Amino acid sequence: MNTFGNIFRLTSFGESHGKAIGGVIDGCPAGLEVDMDFIQQELDRRRPGQSRVTTPRKEADTVVFLSGLFEGKTTGVPIGFMVENTNQHSSDYENLKDVFRPSHADFTYYTKYGIRDYRGGGRSSARETIARVVAGAIAKLYLKQIGISVTAYTSQIGSVALERDYTQYDFNEIENNIVRCPDPQKAEEMIRLIEEVKSQGDTIGGVITGVIQGTPAGLGEPVFGKLHAALGAAMLGINAVKGFEYGSGFDVDHRGSEVNDSFVKEDGKMSTLTNHSGGIQAGISNGQDIYFRVAFKPVSTILREQKTADIQGDTILFKARGRHDPCVLPRAVPIVEAMAAMTLLDYYLLAKSH
Amino acid sequence: MNTFGNIFRLTSFGESHGKAIGGVIDGCPAGLEVDMDFIQQELDRRRPGQSRVTTPRKEADTVVFLSGLFEGKTTGVPIGFMVENTNQHSSDYENLKDVFRPSHADFTYYTKYGIRDYRGGGRSSARETIARVVAGAIAKLYLKQIGISVTAYTSQIGSVALERDYTQYDFNEIENNIVRCPDPQKAEEMIRLIEEVKSQGDTIGGVITGVIQGTPAGLGEPVFGKLHAALGAAMLGINAVKGFEYGSGFDVDHRGSEVNDSFVKEDGKMSTLTNHSGGIQAGISNGQDIYFRVAFKPVSTILREQKTADIQGDTILFKARGRHDPCVLPRAVPIVEAMAAMTLLDYYLLAKSH
Amino acid sequence: MNTFGNIFRLTSFGESHGKAIGGVIDGCPAGLEVDMDFIQQELDRRRPGQSRVTTPRKEADTVVFLSGLFEGKTTGVPIGFMVENTNQHSSDYENLKDVFRPSHADFTYYTKYGIRDYRGGGRSSARETIARVVAGAIAKLYLKQIGISVTAYTSQIGSVALERDYTQYDFNEIENNIVRCPDPQKAEEMIRLIEEVKSQGDTIGGVITGVIQGTPAGLGEPVFGKLHAALGAAMLGINAVKGFEYGSGFDVDHRGSEVNDSFVKEDGKMSTLTNHSGGIQAGISNGQDIYFRVAFKPVSTILREQKTADIQGDTILFKARGRHDPCVLPRAVPIVEAMAAMTLLDYYLLAKSH
Amino acid sequence: MNTFGNIFRLTSFGESHGKAIGGVIDGCPAGLEVDMDFIQQELDRRRPGQSRVTTPRKEADTVVFLSGLFEGKTTGVPIGFMVENTNQHSSDYENLKDVFRPSHADFTYYTKYGIRDYRGGGRSSARETIARVVAGAIAKLYLKQIGISVTAYTSQIGSVALERDYTQYDFNEIENNIVRCPDPQKAEEMIRLIEEVKSQGDTIGGVITGVIQGTPAGLGEPVFGKLHAALGAAMLGINAVKGFEYGSGFDVDHRGSEVNDSFVKEDGKMSTLTNHSGGIQAGISNGQDIYFRVAFKPVSTILREQKTADIQGDTILFKARGRHDPCVLPRAVPIVEAMAAMTLLDYYLLAKSH
Repeated sequence: MNTFGNIFRLTSFGESHGKAIGGVIDGCPAGLEVDMDFIQQELDRRRPGQSRVTTPRKEADTVVFLSGLFEGKTTGVPIGFMVENTNQHSSDYENLKDVFRPSHADFTYYTKYGIRDYRGGGRSSARETIARVVAGAIAKLYLKQIGISVTAYTSQIGSVALERDYTQYDFNEIENNIVRCPDPQKAEEMIRLIEEVKSQGDTIGGVITGVIQGTPAGLGEPVFGKLHAALGAAMLGINAVKGFEYGSGFDVDHRGSEVNDSFVKEDGKMSTLTNHSGGIQAGISNGQDIYFRVAFKPVSTILREQKTADIQGDTILFKARGRHDPCVLPRAVPIVEAMAAMTLLDYYLLAKSH
Repeated sequence: MNTFGNIFRLTSFGESHGKAIGGVIDGCPAGLEVDMDFIQQELDRRRPGQSRVTTPRKEADTVVFLSGLFEGKTTGVPIGFMVENTNQHSSDYENLKDVFRPSHADFTYYTKYGIRDYRGGGRSSARETIARVVAGAIAKLYLKQIGISVTAYTSQIGSVALERDYTQYDFNEIENNIVRCPDPQKAEEMIRLIEEVKSQGDTIGGVITGVIQGTPAGLGEPVFGKLHAALGAAMLGINAVKGFEYGSGFDVDHRGSEVNDSFVKEDGKMSTLTNHSGGIQAGISNGQDIYFRVAFKPVSTILREQKTADIQGDTILFKARGRHDPCVLPRAVPIVEAMAAMTLLDYYLLAKSH
Repeated sequence: MNTFGNIFRLTSFGESHGKAIGGVIDGCPAGLEVDMDFIQQELDRRRPGQSRVTTPRKEADTVVFLSGLFEGKTTGVPIGFMVENTNQHSSDYENLKDVFRPSHADFTYYTKYGIRDYRGGGRSSARETIARVVAGAIAKLYLKQIGISVTAYTSQIGSVALERDYTQYDFNEIENNIVRCPDPQKAEEMIRLIEEVKSQGDTIGGVITGVIQGTPAGLGEPVFGKLHAALGAAMLGINAVKGFEYGSGFDVDHRGSEVNDSFVKEDGKMSTLTNHSGGIQAGISNGQDIYFRVAFKPVSTILREQKTADIQGDTILFKARGRHDPCVLPRAVPIVEAMAAMTLLDYYLLAKSH
Repeated sequence: MNTFGNIFRLTSFGESHGKAIGGVIDGCPAGLEVDMDFIQQELDRRRPGQSRVTTPRKEADTVVFLSGLFEGKTTGVPIGFMVENTNQHSSDYENLKDVFRPSHADFTYYTKYGIRDYRGGGRSSARETIARVVAGAIAKLYLKQIGISVTAYTSQIGSVALERDYTQYDFNEIENNIVRCPDPQKAEEMIRLIEEVKSQGDTIGGVITGVIQGTPAGLGEPVFGKLHAALGAAMLGINAVKGFEYGSGFDVDHRGSEVNDSFVKEDGKMSTLTNHSGGIQAGISNGQDIYFRVAFKPVSTILREQKTADIQGDTILFKARGRHDPCVLPRAVPIVEAMAAMTLLDYYLLAKSH
């Protein structure tokens, strides 16, 4: 269950305060040129300490490849890699050794495993997503070769929200601000909101929108392996995610006659006049843009006093210490992209086996 | 990809106009008493022709078990079963042999498989969900033994919506009306709306809410097999589903301090004061109620003229014939329950292997 | 665990005295013309009552397809099928309701499932292999299109054994005798031996040789999915099989200098001068013939009195009744072929995903 | 395909001349005390340079754990580990950059991946089995707790062979000689034979016997996941293995009446009078000793001149250089044990999910 994918498979390992976070990528086609700078750049987009709206923790997060590459290319065998944990302060967590923090993994992990690895969330820490970003970066490199791009951006933080329609926005703007929002004005509002929330020792949730362009028609597996079901499972596997919708999603107050996408042949290629389907029909891509939205709850770790129970069941007052994100979305954008890229590549390779 | 689950596994087969729809359930524990009346009753809740807001097609949908049972109990070996297709009119579909119906599976299946099985949607027909309802009924019987119940209800149709908070409603009311809504007044509004939509040859979408009660803490698999990711994939695998959220879901405009669920020991058992988490924390059940919402688009088949393309790419005018559902939700309630029940049982059995 | 394969997958169901034996084939490519006569002919090769060296039970074993075919071709969706059980006499088995027959599944199934389905072996009956023969026949039809053939023959019964080297034999002779042995004289000896054994109410073991010709180089998955490991698991999954070897196998008393296969380019294609490797090197096919041997123990059911224990642990004398095979090999030949064909097709499709 | 197991899963990575060999163990139960000395001791049994009958290459092969352990115990999350490659001489392999060595992976890997990683066999190198030995050692530690032991020994080298019956031998003798043979006299003969073969620059094959004791009845999954099929696949996945048999295996010239194992209740436990079944009946363990034999071909790399083809198809004369094993069996004993231990633990955990 620490393995993701069918053909292109990532097995991830590592907890926040262990020696390293890493993974093994199995099923990556041979002969792919691996752009190390690009991979590091993706990790840097996820890295803590990158801006004033993220945790101030500084981590280099440098990836080391252990296998699977030869003369700069993939060889078809497993790609092992790791990122050493260098700046973890276990001491930040000593005071919570016996605490079940509200809405954290403490209680459920303890119940499941019978062991309390209290050091910074252990395996439930979002630090594990490092492995996904590395594998996602490699997936992106492959997808680029076949004309598929994956883009995500912050579309809502608290009450500050963009329009649903992603076509209104210029994706080139996304990396121009620290919240990764393609609307510069909304971006500023989001930043102000996060700073306000942070100053109160609090946290805030939001929504990330993902867009996949260039997908050929025909990817997806009926009936339990629908492309959007795989995408949804991928997104719901990201820490703090509470919801997933694609195409018209929860915007259900419509008639069939309003939202049906009519087919039309354009330039020798079958297309649709509208795209309420979100690029997927009956679980299979139809060649249009795939778009989806992912809901993130506010980070559970707040720097305010909270009442909760300890391991004995006694009610206690508890206040987190250390360096934490007031809002997870800016750093989650590359993670959403990574999971989407792995899913797409996996389904692309799967479709080749038919 | 026609197999669902890890330990409790359903492999389904069958298309709307073939001989039969059926499946094989593998991994069902031995010794479970199988209540045939209950299974048939669940099928009847899914059956077409059950009320004036569903398709008038009449199908008996009687299940025949082919293996896996001995003296009324499961034996631990695969349970094969089928439901014969008796009332399918292929003639209803002859006029769409060469049509790519808007928002239907026609184009994507044709692209994927290179074959056009035009008879009623073929494998993409919701008739396939018969197999899921049978397997889900068996899962429910097992879950009942261990104190877990799965309940779903229609919480929104078009603009008629219930409150998010499921605890306000009396689940005993659900089966008292033909839309399966626990609020009798809203149910009437929903029925009126569907009838109006139907009279226009149109269709309408909505939301189904699911609630799982009695789940022990500790079910769920980090990091890619989170319980809610499995539930989400299960729901997104249902025909016409466009979104899934659990707990606070897309209701993201909140601070951590507002939505964190504090632990408290009650009656010797760890509980939470609130349940914004939706019964799942870090992908693992915490013993509280699991609740989630599933968005359904309006059915694509409308009885109105639509413009679209045919297989040659020519634009044509097209109007569906036959007997169709104006709104899929009333019949989808048991399907949501079935998928949730299978997921829970699968994860319950999986947890036993640790 | 009742599913075989990765891409081309068979899920089988059914026990000897249930309603039907059947299966679901998932992942069969669309557009394959399905020759029904060929499938039935394969079933007939497995059928009981086909000759004087098999059980006299008469079963028609007629397959009914329930889904997945349209206008005589596969559509890419699951192929459901079944063979009804028509000539099972449960009364044959009433006397062994409480007996743990020697070397049978009775004790282990009872221990595993806590249930005693005493009717003819239940799921452990070789009757289950019907599903494999059907799926194997479909796999053969596909393989034929791409130039791959799968042939098996009886190479040893008791002490009557052919030479290891399959190239000495004329495969056209195989179906000319009732033991399916390509050497007519040895075939007669084998038949005499089986008849002698049968007259004593006893049974006898042997070896089946399999040969796969036309496999392209490059099929097989390092490191745990080696092609011969998959073939071995497939063969060891057949009832009564006790061993598997390929290429030089257990003939280990050789030096590397004797058995290394040197490469040579012939007609523009890389070949080897010898083929001790059995067509597979480092788990991947090299384009030469794949050959292997499968050991079968004597059938456990003998018509002689045996001492054993009953369910209470009391020692009893027990004698089987009914109609049984004195030697399983003649009927196992098509099963070996079926498993080999499914394995090859699965790996062929898997290789396409790289 | 670089993942082994269902519940207890090893994903391995690494090639002989990359940075490191390693793996990720997923599904290991939490709370297992990990005896580091034992793990290193198992690696030492596999290590090159351990005696005069193995390759003289010296490698420390020290394992570093990267995750999954806390305070000396497993935590239930993935156990990442690696062994750095420190003594690989790529120069040993420069002369074979363009050679397809006889019976080696060179040609098949090149055909499959289109890339020639010529450094010491790359992924096909037996050095990859380091990952298996580490994971197997952890599996052994768990099995020990539940009373299951796994023992392997060299039972044949070339023409020097022990009796089939393992009960004749004292397992305490196994580690007393460098070929790991429980018969001291035969061990000396084997050593002399290997030394003779080595002096000729040649290699020799043999057989390893495995014995699993203490397995409870009831492990194994019909019909495709039979315990012996899983064991067989595990063994056939080891480099240089050409055959697998269990119980009576290829010793097929027997009547049913001779080899049927009668049940008898002894000390309140069901047992069998004989054990031709090899501890497994109908794919499920019956509580008796499980025993099996594994055939190894002679190592392909010989220090003698051989004729073969190069990448252009030209016939060339080729002679290997470097430090190689004249006989792989002494070092393969712990690998056989590791694969058996992983298989048993996997099936033990799987059985708990029923």
